[in-house]
Amino acid sequence: MSCVFCAIVAGDAPAVRIWEDDEHLAILDIRPFTQGHTLVIPKRHTVDLTDTPPHTVATMTTIGQRIAKAARASGLHADGNNIAINDGKAAFQSVFHIHLHVVPRRDGDKLKFAKGMLVRRDPDRGQTGRLLREALARIDADEKE
Amino acid sequence: MSCVFCAIVAGDAPAVRIWEDDEHLAILDIRPFTQGHTLVIPKRHTVDLTDTPPHTVATMTTIGQRIAKAARASGLHADGNNIAINDGKAAFQSVFHIHLHVVPRRDGDKLKFAKGMLVRRDPDRGQTGRLLREALARIDADEKE
Repeated sequence: MSCVFCAIVAGDAPAVRIWEDDEHLAILDIRPFTQGHTLVIPKRHTVDLTDTPPHTVATMTTIGQRIAKAARASGLHADGNNIAINDGKAAFQSVFHIHLHVVPRRDGDKLKFAKGMLVRRDPDRGQTGRLLREALARIDADEKE
Repeated sequence: MSCVFCAIVAGDAPAVRIWEDDEHLAILDIRPFTQGHTLVIPKRHTVDLTDTPPHTVATMTTIGQRIAKAARASGLHADGNNIAINDGKAAFQSVFHIHLHVVPRRDGDKLKFAKGMLVRRDPDRGQTGRLLREALARIDADEKE
């Protein structure tokens, strides 16, 4: 098995985990476009939109929506988010285990975003992970009230 | 009412329609990044990921998955697709009625894709729409067999 996401799911490779249930895992991208750039990964290996069941694509996206809301509510103070699935090598997919990107954005960060595409580095991933996990926990708590 | 997507849904503004049911409409983007660039739009007006119900986000994405498959199977001969939701002005959202982008991609089209961001023009939208509708109809027929 040489899939890096399968290795992370199995606990054989490290990652900053943001959220997890039986079927999905959300982790920080190790090469973030912006601070908080998160990947939502179905635990069961499929490649792209051609072989992933629609219910998996649907659930992956609603988890992404929750993380996008959390990024706004979090200490990252996002003003918006780009959500993306790169379906196939032609579309910039680089890990061939389907995943959804959540890229938190700030007002006026266009230049920073463009620079992030090249630099793709977070100086404190541990802290970024904590900020997102805390905001997700608050959203969960609010919904249960 | 000044929302251009609500006007298209109501039939008061023109669009090349790719697919439609009671709750969603898919149309060609009038300023396409690539040929076949399609928008999936929930008919009920909401703004972004903060106010759109999760089941709507989920359905919008699975419709996008079908269109992505159709783009590969169609006369457009896509090798992949970018799927994206721009959530908020900070994230390049320009029409404030939530929508999902499906951007068909071809192997080695990086430069064409970059150029498409600037030019954003399809010389024959009618033909592009036909190619996608035909492929969607074939996918539907195959699934019913």
